[in-house]
Amino acid sequence: MKKLTGTTLILTGIIVVMAVLLVAMLFFLRNQPTAKRGVDPIVQVKQMEADSAVWGQNFPNQYTTLMQTETNATRTTYGGSVPFEKTEEDPMLLTIFAGNAFSTGYGEDRGHMNALEDVRNTPRLSDKTPGTCYSCKSSDNPKLWAEMGMAAYDATPFKELSSKIEHPIGCANCHEAGTMRLIVTNPALDEALKKQGKDWQTFTRQEMRTVVCANCHVEYYFTKEGAYLTFPWEKGTTVESIESYYTEIGFSDFEHKLSGASMIKMQHPDYELYTANSTHYNAGVACADCHMPYTRDGAVKFSNHNVQSPLVNPAAACGACHTDVDYVVGRVNIIQKSVYDTMMNTEKALVAAIGAIEQAAATAGVDEAKLAEARSLHRAAQLRWDFIAAENSMGFHNSQEALRILAAATDMARQAELAALQAAGGATASK
Amino acid sequence: MKKLTGTTLILTGIIVVMAVLLVAMLFFLRNQPTAKRGVDPIVQVKQMEADSAVWGQNFPNQYTTLMQTETNATRTTYGGSVPFEKTEEDPMLLTIFAGNAFSTGYGEDRGHMNALEDVRNTPRLSDKTPGTCYSCKSSDNPKLWAEMGMAAYDATPFKELSSKIEHPIGCANCHEAGTMRLIVTNPALDEALKKQGKDWQTFTRQEMRTVVCANCHVEYYFTKEGAYLTFPWEKGTTVESIESYYTEIGFSDFEHKLSGASMIKMQHPDYELYTANSTHYNAGVACADCHMPYTRDGAVKFSNHNVQSPLVNPAAACGACHTDVDYVVGRVNIIQKSVYDTMMNTEKALVAAIGAIEQAAATAGVDEAKLAEARSLHRAAQLRWDFIAAENSMGFHNSQEALRILAAATDMARQAELAALQAAGGATASK
Repeated sequence: MKKLTGTTLILTGIIVVMAVLLVAMLFFLRNQPTAKRGVDPIVQVKQMEADSAVWGQNFPNQYTTLMQTETNATRTTYGGSVPFEKTEEDPMLLTIFAGNAFSTGYGEDRGHMNALEDVRNTPRLSDKTPGTCYSCKSSDNPKLWAEMGMAAYDATPFKELSSKIEHPIGCANCHEAGTMRLIVTNPALDEALKKQGKDWQTFTRQEMRTVVCANCHVEYYFTKEGAYLTFPWEKGTTVESIESYYTEIGFSDFEHKLSGASMIKMQHPDYELYTANSTHYNAGVACADCHMPYTRDGAVKFSNHNVQSPLVNPAAACGACHTDVDYVVGRVNIIQKSVYDTMMNTEKALVAAIGAIEQAAATAGVDEAKLAEARSLHRAAQLRWDFIAAENSMGFHNSQEALRILAAATDMARQAELAALQAAGGATASK
Repeated sequence: MKKLTGTTLILTGIIVVMAVLLVAMLFFLRNQPTAKRGVDPIVQVKQMEADSAVWGQNFPNQYTTLMQTETNATRTTYGGSVPFEKTEEDPMLLTIFAGNAFSTGYGEDRGHMNALEDVRNTPRLSDKTPGTCYSCKSSDNPKLWAEMGMAAYDATPFKELSSKIEHPIGCANCHEAGTMRLIVTNPALDEALKKQGKDWQTFTRQEMRTVVCANCHVEYYFTKEGAYLTFPWEKGTTVESIESYYTEIGFSDFEHKLSGASMIKMQHPDYELYTANSTHYNAGVACADCHMPYTRDGAVKFSNHNVQSPLVNPAAACGACHTDVDYVVGRVNIIQKSVYDTMMNTEKALVAAIGAIEQAAATAGVDEAKLAEARSLHRAAQLRWDFIAAENSMGFHNSQEALRILAAATDMARQAELAALQAAGGATASK
C-alpha cells in the first residue's frame, strides 16, 4: 500500500476515466444509424404491390399527381383526356372500320386512373374478349403475371379475370419496390425486346423513361391461339417492318365488311413512331420529359405523374428545354394541322377505295386477280393510315415520319381504288 | 514709352503668346478629319455599279468569297453546285416535262458567278427567249432597269439584250452603294410585295436578309404580252394561293405533250416554301444566316458571300445556333430522305396519270368531261409536286409543308389516273 504514491494515484485515475470514455464512445457509435442516401421509407412496400396508395405513403407527390389523372379532363385540339366519341366527330371512321369493333365505339381515352373503369365499359367488350385486354389497365398485373404466367392470364376470359383485378394503372406497372428503379413489367415487352436482341436491364435510366411507356403505348396483337399478347417487332418497329412481319405470319385482325380485305387494326404505336428517328428521340428526350415534366414542391423536385398532353402545361413540358414556349406551341399547332389535313385526305381516299372494291366485288365477271390486288392495297393503305391515326400525337411525336407514312397511305388507297375499277372493267382501257 | 513698365511688358507678352496658340489651335482643329463611323472607303462606288470588282476594293472579304462561287463545285446528296443533268439521274422527268423545255435539259445550277455563262449555254434557249431570262443573272440589271424600265427590258429579245449584259450576279443586285444597305432591286419583287400591301422599305435588316434572296429565288411567270416578269403572289405565297391566282387569270406555261393538260412550270420557290411557317423562318432565321454564315477574318466579321448549301460547311452554317452539329446534319439527312422517298412516289403517280390520260384521249367515245377533269387534276398534282421538286432544299426549308404538299400531289395524280380510266370506259363500273 505504501507504494501508492500521489503520482500513481493520479495516473490511475486518468486511465480509469479514459477507459470509461472509450466504452461510452463505442456504445454511442454502435447505436448511431448507418449512413445512407435519402430518407427512410415510412412503410416497406412489397414487390409488385398492386395498391398505389401503399407506395403513396412514401411518395406523396408522385401519388397525388397520379391520382389527378382521374379528373384531369382537358380537351386539346385533336385529343386530350375528355372521352368524346371519335366516330361522331369523324363519320368516315364508320366506313373505314366496318367489320371491326372500333366501328361500334371509338372513344377518346381518359387518364391512367380511369383505365380500369373505361375498359370495363367499352362497347367493344364481348363474352369472347380475352383477359389479355386487362394487360394495360391494372397495377394488379405484375403480381398476376408472376403468379399465373402470362399465357394463363391471357387465356382466361376477360370477365372471369375481373375478380382478380382491382386497381387501375399504378406504381407497380413501372417501378420496382424498394429501389424504385424503372422496370419492364409487361412480359410481352420483355419478349419483344429480346427478339430484337435487346436487354432492357442494360438500358440507362433516361432510356427507361421512354421504354416503360412501351409496356402499353405500342402496336400489339393477340395470337389466334390463347390470345397471347405479342408485339410485332421481330423485324423492327417501323410501319414497314411491322407490315412485313404480319404478312409473313399471315396475320389479320379482321375482315373488312365492305371491301372484304384482310385488315390490321393498329393500336396506339406511340413508342414505335416516336423512336423512328424523331427529332426529340434522337436528341435524347424521353417520353417522361414532356408527359411527366419535373415539378417542384418546395425544395423537392419530382416527376409529375399526372400524365397528360404536354399542351396542357407547355411551360413545364416544353419550357425545361425551350426558352420561347409560345413559339414552340405555335410549331406544334402548325405540325398537327399539316398532319390532320393530310390524314383527312387519306381517309377520303380510303373511303373511295372501299366503295370501289365493294362495287367491283358485286360486278359479274370481275377480274378476281385484280380484285385481290385492290384488297391487298386497301390493307396496306389502311394499316399505314391507322399507324398515324391510332397514335396519340396527331403526328407531333415524329412529324416527317407521320407525313411520309400518310402520303404513302393515300397513294396506296388511290391505287386500291384504281385496281378495283380495273377489276370491274376499266382494265381493258388501262392496259 | 515711359509707361511700358516691366509688368506691362510681361502681360503683353502673355497675350501675344495666347493669341498665337489660339490661332494655331483653330488651324489644327479645322484640319482635323470629322468624326464618323467606320473607315473611309478606298473608292467611291457609283449607285448600281455593275462591276463587283469596284465594290470589292472596299469590301475585299465579301468580294473574295463572292468570287469563290465560280469554283465552289460541291455535290451534296440531292443538289449542290455541280452541274449534273437531272433528267439523266431521274428519267421520269422526261415524261413529266414532255412538251416543256425542261425535258430538253434540266441541269443542276452552279454558283452565282456562273449564272451568266450558264444561262447563255442552257439548251432551253431559243430565238424566242425574251430578255426577261436575264433578270436573275446579272449585276448589270439594276442600272438597265433604271435606264430602260423593266417593260422595255423584258420586251427585248434575249440575244439582243446580250450586248448590254457583261457581269454575272454581283453586289449591285442586293446592295445600295454608299450605305451598303440591303435593297430590293428587281422591280417584279417590289411590285409583288406592293400588291400584298407590303413595303420593303419598312423591313428590318434581318428581314431583308431573307427578302433580297426573293429577288430571284421565287416562283415567277412572264406575261403572254411582253414577257413581263411577274410574281404570282397577289393572293399569297402558299402553293394553293399561287394555284388559285393562276387559275383566276387563266394562265398556263405549256400544254403537256402527252396528257394535253394546261400546265404550270414552277421555278425554284425557295422563298415561298421557306416563309410558309417553316420552323427556321418562324424563329427569325434569315436565308443569309445559313447560306452566308458569319465568318471571321482576324478581327473582322463578315457574311460569307460564297453562297452555297449549308451542308458544305455545317459547322459555320448550323453551328452558330446549334451546339450539336452532327445531330443537326443527321436531322437534315432524315428529313431530306423522307421528302425524297415521298417525291419519288409522287413522280410515279404523275407518270401513271400521264399514261392513263394519254390512253384515254386516244380511246374512241371517250367521256370528254371526265377527260377534262383528269387533265385538270394532272395540272393541280404536277404544280404541287413541282413546287417542291423545283425548290432547292429537298424539302428541308420547310419539311412539314413539303410533305403535306407532296401527299396532296400524289393524291391528285392518282385521282387524275382514276378519272382518265373512268373517261375511257371504267366510268360505268364506278358510278
